[in-house]
Amino acid sequence: MEKDVKEKHVYKFGVGSADGDKTLKELLGGKGANLAEMSSIGLPVPPGFTITTEACNYYSSHGSEWPKGLKEQVKKGVHFIEDIMKTNLGDSEHPLLLSVRSGAAVSMPGMMDTVLNLGLNDTSVEALASHTNNERFAYDSYRRFIDMFGNVVMGIPHEKFEHALESLKSEKGAELDTDLNKQDLKELVNRYKAVYRKATGYMFPTDPFEQLEWAINAVFKSWDSDRAIKYRQINHITGLLGTGVNVQAMVYGNMGDDCATGVCFTRNPSTGENKLYGEFLVNAQGEDVVAGIRTPKDITELKEVMPKAYNELLDWGKELEKHYGNMQDIEFTIQKGTLYILQTRNGKRTGHSAIKIATDMVAEGLIDERHAVKNLVEPNHLDQLLHPQIDADTVKEKSVIGVGLAASPGAAVGKVVFDSEKAEEAALKDDPVILVRIETSPEDVGGMSAAEGILTSRGGMTSHAAVVARGWGKPCVAGCSDIIIDYENLSFTNGKITVHEGDWISIDGARGTVIEGRKDVIKPELDENYKTFMSWVDQFRDMNVRTNADTKEDASRARDFGAEGIGLCRTEHMFFGEDRIRAIRRMIISDSFENRKDALATLLPYQKADFKEIFKSMDNLPVTIRLLDPPLHEFLPEEKEDIEIVAKELGIKPSVFAQKVRSLREFNPMLGHRGCRLGITYPEITQMQTRAILEAAIELKNEGYTLFPEIMIPLVGTPQEFRSQKLVIDRTAKDVFEELGDSIDYKVGTMIEIPRAALVAGQIAKDAEFFSFGTNDLTQMTFGYSRDDAGKFLGEYLKEGILQEDPFQVLDTEGVGQLVEMATKKGREQKPALKVGICGEHGGEPHSVTFCYQQGLNYVSCSPFRVPVARLAAAQAALNV
Amino acid sequence: MEKDVKEKHVYKFGVGSADGDKTLKELLGGKGANLAEMSSIGLPVPPGFTITTEACNYYSSHGSEWPKGLKEQVKKGVHFIEDIMKTNLGDSEHPLLLSVRSGAAVSMPGMMDTVLNLGLNDTSVEALASHTNNERFAYDSYRRFIDMFGNVVMGIPHEKFEHALESLKSEKGAELDTDLNKQDLKELVNRYKAVYRKATGYMFPTDPFEQLEWAINAVFKSWDSDRAIKYRQINHITGLLGTGVNVQAMVYGNMGDDCATGVCFTRNPSTGENKLYGEFLVNAQGEDVVAGIRTPKDITELKEVMPKAYNELLDWGKELEKHYGNMQDIEFTIQKGTLYILQTRNGKRTGHSAIKIATDMVAEGLIDERHAVKNLVEPNHLDQLLHPQIDADTVKEKSVIGVGLAASPGAAVGKVVFDSEKAEEAALKDDPVILVRIETSPEDVGGMSAAEGILTSRGGMTSHAAVVARGWGKPCVAGCSDIIIDYENLSFTNGKITVHEGDWISIDGARGTVIEGRKDVIKPELDENYKTFMSWVDQFRDMNVRTNADTKEDASRARDFGAEGIGLCRTEHMFFGEDRIRAIRRMIISDSFENRKDALATLLPYQKADFKEIFKSMDNLPVTIRLLDPPLHEFLPEEKEDIEIVAKELGIKPSVFAQKVRSLREFNPMLGHRGCRLGITYPEITQMQTRAILEAAIELKNEGYTLFPEIMIPLVGTPQEFRSQKLVIDRTAKDVFEELGDSIDYKVGTMIEIPRAALVAGQIAKDAEFFSFGTNDLTQMTFGYSRDDAGKFLGEYLKEGILQEDPFQVLDTEGVGQLVEMATKKGREQKPALKVGICGEHGGEPHSVTFCYQQGLNYVSCSPFRVPVARLAAAQAALNV
Repeated sequence: MEKDVKEKHVYKFGVGSADGDKTLKELLGGKGANLAEMSSIGLPVPPGFTITTEACNYYSSHGSEWPKGLKEQVKKGVHFIEDIMKTNLGDSEHPLLLSVRSGAAVSMPGMMDTVLNLGLNDTSVEALASHTNNERFAYDSYRRFIDMFGNVVMGIPHEKFEHALESLKSEKGAELDTDLNKQDLKELVNRYKAVYRKATGYMFPTDPFEQLEWAINAVFKSWDSDRAIKYRQINHITGLLGTGVNVQAMVYGNMGDDCATGVCFTRNPSTGENKLYGEFLVNAQGEDVVAGIRTPKDITELKEVMPKAYNELLDWGKELEKHYGNMQDIEFTIQKGTLYILQTRNGKRTGHSAIKIATDMVAEGLIDERHAVKNLVEPNHLDQLLHPQIDADTVKEKSVIGVGLAASPGAAVGKVVFDSEKAEEAALKDDPVILVRIETSPEDVGGMSAAEGILTSRGGMTSHAAVVARGWGKPCVAGCSDIIIDYENLSFTNGKITVHEGDWISIDGARGTVIEGRKDVIKPELDENYKTFMSWVDQFRDMNVRTNADTKEDASRARDFGAEGIGLCRTEHMFFGEDRIRAIRRMIISDSFENRKDALATLLPYQKADFKEIFKSMDNLPVTIRLLDPPLHEFLPEEKEDIEIVAKELGIKPSVFAQKVRSLREFNPMLGHRGCRLGITYPEITQMQTRAILEAAIELKNEGYTLFPEIMIPLVGTPQEFRSQKLVIDRTAKDVFEELGDSIDYKVGTMIEIPRAALVAGQIAKDAEFFSFGTNDLTQMTFGYSRDDAGKFLGEYLKEGILQEDPFQVLDTEGVGQLVEMATKKGREQKPALKVGICGEHGGEPHSVTFCYQQGLNYVSCSPFRVPVARLAAAQAALNV
Repeated sequence: MEKDVKEKHVYKFGVGSADGDKTLKELLGGKGANLAEMSSIGLPVPPGFTITTEACNYYSSHGSEWPKGLKEQVKKGVHFIEDIMKTNLGDSEHPLLLSVRSGAAVSMPGMMDTVLNLGLNDTSVEALASHTNNERFAYDSYRRFIDMFGNVVMGIPHEKFEHALESLKSEKGAELDTDLNKQDLKELVNRYKAVYRKATGYMFPTDPFEQLEWAINAVFKSWDSDRAIKYRQINHITGLLGTGVNVQAMVYGNMGDDCATGVCFTRNPSTGENKLYGEFLVNAQGEDVVAGIRTPKDITELKEVMPKAYNELLDWGKELEKHYGNMQDIEFTIQKGTLYILQTRNGKRTGHSAIKIATDMVAEGLIDERHAVKNLVEPNHLDQLLHPQIDADTVKEKSVIGVGLAASPGAAVGKVVFDSEKAEEAALKDDPVILVRIETSPEDVGGMSAAEGILTSRGGMTSHAAVVARGWGKPCVAGCSDIIIDYENLSFTNGKITVHEGDWISIDGARGTVIEGRKDVIKPELDENYKTFMSWVDQFRDMNVRTNADTKEDASRARDFGAEGIGLCRTEHMFFGEDRIRAIRRMIISDSFENRKDALATLLPYQKADFKEIFKSMDNLPVTIRLLDPPLHEFLPEEKEDIEIVAKELGIKPSVFAQKVRSLREFNPMLGHRGCRLGITYPEITQMQTRAILEAAIELKNEGYTLFPEIMIPLVGTPQEFRSQKLVIDRTAKDVFEELGDSIDYKVGTMIEIPRAALVAGQIAKDAEFFSFGTNDLTQMTFGYSRDDAGKFLGEYLKEGILQEDPFQVLDTEGVGQLVEMATKKGREQKPALKVGICGEHGGEPHSVTFCYQQGLNYVSCSPFRVPVARLAAAQAALNV
């Protein structure tokens, strides 16, 4: 069974050439293949070599033996590096130092990361000191190397080295590491060696080649570490041979004034301006740029200091932009006047600059529109563009009170209030407030609407607060468990900072941060570039994008963002106004059909008026209205005092009302008496809603509007449920049409949000005119996860790799996706023209939109602010076919 | 598009011959085909004819016109009847009267049922009076005919006739209907005619043929009644033409002393004795037997009164037993010495007699063993056999306090207690008690175990009380909403009867009845016939039957009942003993891994001891143990006072403990942090349980037992979850085996109870050695029904025909069944030898067992008392292939 081991174990790469290329990912690992690719373009990458995954496999399966020839090839590899770098490993004057990194074909936690500065010993450290003219730097590098080598190669706990450091500091009265002088660092190196000897029983290896062998073995072994094995087993990653080992020359920007180090973008990542953007430090290491002890210089100044290197960098920038068709983020080091490019990759950028770069690069003829849409803007970039942003420069770390879930993007600044009524009062006075609640319920919608932003300490990405806020495009940080809210004392605290009612805070719903005080906010702006870009997007897009909207404001906003109809209009939010909630409560407590009918009759005009507003804003476009969905107890008060107040309002005995409230409570409301189950036990609700929809539509038709009402039945699990509700709807329609002497076309369809509905979708499609996947509930029931409770284990699941993504954020294509596929297939087999869409939260998430496109859905529907995101994701899905 | 109408619209049937036969169900409807079948055997059925469903279809689609030739054929049909009955419709001396009934190929609510005594008018009523020598009877029949005809044929509300009756009674000072004399009844007939005239505008039709035409039209029309249409639409009953119309001669047992009417069974339905069993009345109508005014005579006496008819009946009984291979239940009437058999069908019987009849008929050579197993005993018959029964004769209607769900069969008698502690105290004193609770929770298991039976006022067939009681074979009536329980005053009431603590009640868990006082109980007995029969059953059975058992008592009992292993041993019930619950609570409140591990260590010996007991009772058989499943909050107290007590026990601050309890509460516990999600976040629980299982097994192995431990991971939804837990189990096993220097084979498998698990079953099967369908949870999540809450709408669903069966009782083969099929198929494709079983409640329900057999499952597992039921159901499934 032994696999035939190839004789070539080592693939070299250097300036302008490489043994391998990017197709050899299996053999060289991802990192190795990428280094080969960069080298072969001709980039001045520091030379090195990659040991194959096959060699690793041999090592694992042959009792830690190297395959025949590996040692010689590694030596040759080192010579190759030495030749290019014109120096030798272990050289006492001009030492070559190496980095060693693991890299499998699939990135995997639990494997060895990096050993830097390999090759240092008592001799070479002196050479490094003299070359860098910085003894302190050399010895600090040396002691760090011993620590890193001891820890990652030999498994010595890092704490043991830390302990030696702390002892020395206390002996020397030093507070910070930097208080130690050169002499102290030399002493520290000796102590670290002692730690090493004590822990391993060996002297610290001074032979650089021996160091290298140890490091290579450590990388080989890390492939079989417990954590790596567990990760592969849990995720069934099989068929991989092992990890590659990447050995590469280290280059130094701190060997004199003809040296430098820096990072740069080929264009400005904030503004998109077509000009090299970045910074550098002369005679410095990369770490110095980060540490902030010396202030880096603007990249343009490099032109004066090292014109040759600067021009090379500039040329490479243009070359790479052409090669990758994208703006690049480049790490470089100049060693003794020679430019080395350590890394280049597509640069991260803001939404604003992403759009500008895309349109500019098209204008410059570097790319075409198709490439721009497909590659240059991420759908989530558009999210930034549409929401106010907190100016990150003004936020100091210590003013961050907590970090929760980035539940609804955008920045909000306001005074803290803890209840909805106060939020509404403040809004009347134009006082900006942030509503802070442990969690929100439908009773809070007034206050949520009035507030600038919402902060909750409990609940997930699909908690009430998150869903409602996203729907409105209102900033929200949800489930911020860093804070504890004290309703009694009207304050919240993270243990250090306590915030009281009326204090100012700022929240950043795109990052999930809660910040003390008033922060500056940058307003969103949709410029010409945006319009140009989105027109290209629509050119390549062939799936419709609708919106989830419950109010005319949402509907109009979404239409401005390009929505092509409403995919989900929830009717229950319409029941929370003062008079309406009373009527619905009267309906709920009615013992007789007649009383219920009366109570519903008072709701009819409200519903009708709401629908008219929404229809008006969607003239010429389809509007899908979902019938009442939540369990009735959501409309009733929970607390004793509220029960008494409401009982009084309704004119019934508090004890009787309390009894009713109790009797409606459910053990698992998610799986309870809701959706079409309500419509079946109380068909009069369906009648009233159908009447409101159709009367509104006909009246508007007579005013000249063109409407396409679609009535959607929620929570259907059996074809019988659908038919029973459709009968009620069709009969009511007949009555309404007769009464008004006029009619309008309407469709009746269903949510597919119960697993069983997907299983019997063929039968449902016999009668249904459209399907809309409610993937929030479908995910809950397919996984058996309550979105309100899953927080207790989802974090652990993601950490352990049991789930790759939160299925409430990114559609689980493997499981839930099967049901989507099955229902679409069965439905279309029965009725080829069946219209199929999605209206769950996933409808605005790019990966999920791609999946919907692949399944042939007619449309995705998402909250207004996600509409542009979905448009771009849909176009990219079409371009990636 | 018009369907070609056949020329033959009427199919006659009479003694010994028939135009149709049982294959013509589509054309004649179910009832018509059955009458044809009985006639063709030669049974003396009252003659008649069936109008085809095609005629009905013609009527519906041609503006209420009869098809050509129908009128003549109906007339001929009437003549046919007249010829056989030797009298004429409307004859003034010896009138022929008819019954008219609808009957489609599928039985369907909402269609017209029956019109009796058609042909009565002012003339024929007198003839009937003189023939029966009972003027009172004749006029009572007449007024009932007018009412029935008016109501079902003409749609006159029945109340209008009732009103006329009540008026007359009050005028006459009559209290009961029977207080009215002949004269009064004649007056009543006139008043009924007036009601008829007023409501319809027509005179009551006196021409019998006109009556017949009206009645036939009414049956035709009832096919298109709103309710019938709605029922067909909801259930998508299509392809049927219409209903058949059955017109049949009425025969009378009250035309003199050469007349009689009666019912008899060919064997005794209570004891099974092979002797005609039944009763009759001379010169009486069927109604008289039911009304109980005259005491019917034992059928044996018929031999003396009418020997010829008796011998004919006896002969027909034997003939029919041979024809149908089954004991028959026969309705007969003797008119003027002629025996008419109105109806014969397989007789209902008790479990005891079913077994005796089956074994006797085999012994008598009437049937073979295969037929006996396949047809003569219903699986549910065995249920009766295994449980004590309340002697139905001792129960008076008014002593029935309420009727709830028949949650766990058997009778129990005891004094009422309202809490578990009192039940346990009483048990110590050998005092029989019934535990009465609104609902039960795991904390009540001690009291439930101590009580004779359990009564709850809330919860369904799969509520905690029902599931636990069925597992123990303990009688339980669940969800008895007829009663209201008042814990404060220690009483419950149905509004009329109030029962206090200490009062005696009896409950019948097979019927769901709650009865005041101490009732006599008949003890179960398993005789030789039972053993013989069950040996035949096992001969034809080729699917295994295991049991769900959590204790050695259950396990031994199930083994006695024929269980071939344990399919589900739940471990959580083992945590409720005094010391154990404290340890698990300590574990739950632990903040650190170490503390949790310590707490679990104290649980280990308990678990191990429990497993040893269970293993011992299943020597040589497989035992599947499910790892901890319920959410942790189920182990914590709920009420404030209990929280304080427990906090004290655990030695922590009540406020801290209360906070912990609160933090563990879930919105939808069914979809929360439970099952393998616990094992993943706390692998130390899985470790402890694995250790307990394997240490127990190895120790017993050394004592000479042969064990097949199977460890089952609950609530798996992703292959990653399974692998992660399997890793923990396998590593723990390795440790245990090393420590003990010994090992044992074990299997690791999973519950399939999350829809997603069925969807990705192929991937799970790569690592799993067996699947067991947990159809309780699978049903909950596939339908999105919480079993604790679905009561709010399930009743309505069943009534409206939206569901045909409660899916928690009978497996939903169409939806949930698809997932079972899919998972079995995908699992076996991956691993052909994969063992697949079911351990949900459905494992003991005959229809569901049949489905499992059809899917090729290796075994079903059910509660001990359902084991014989499942064995028989499995054998019948095999015989029905």
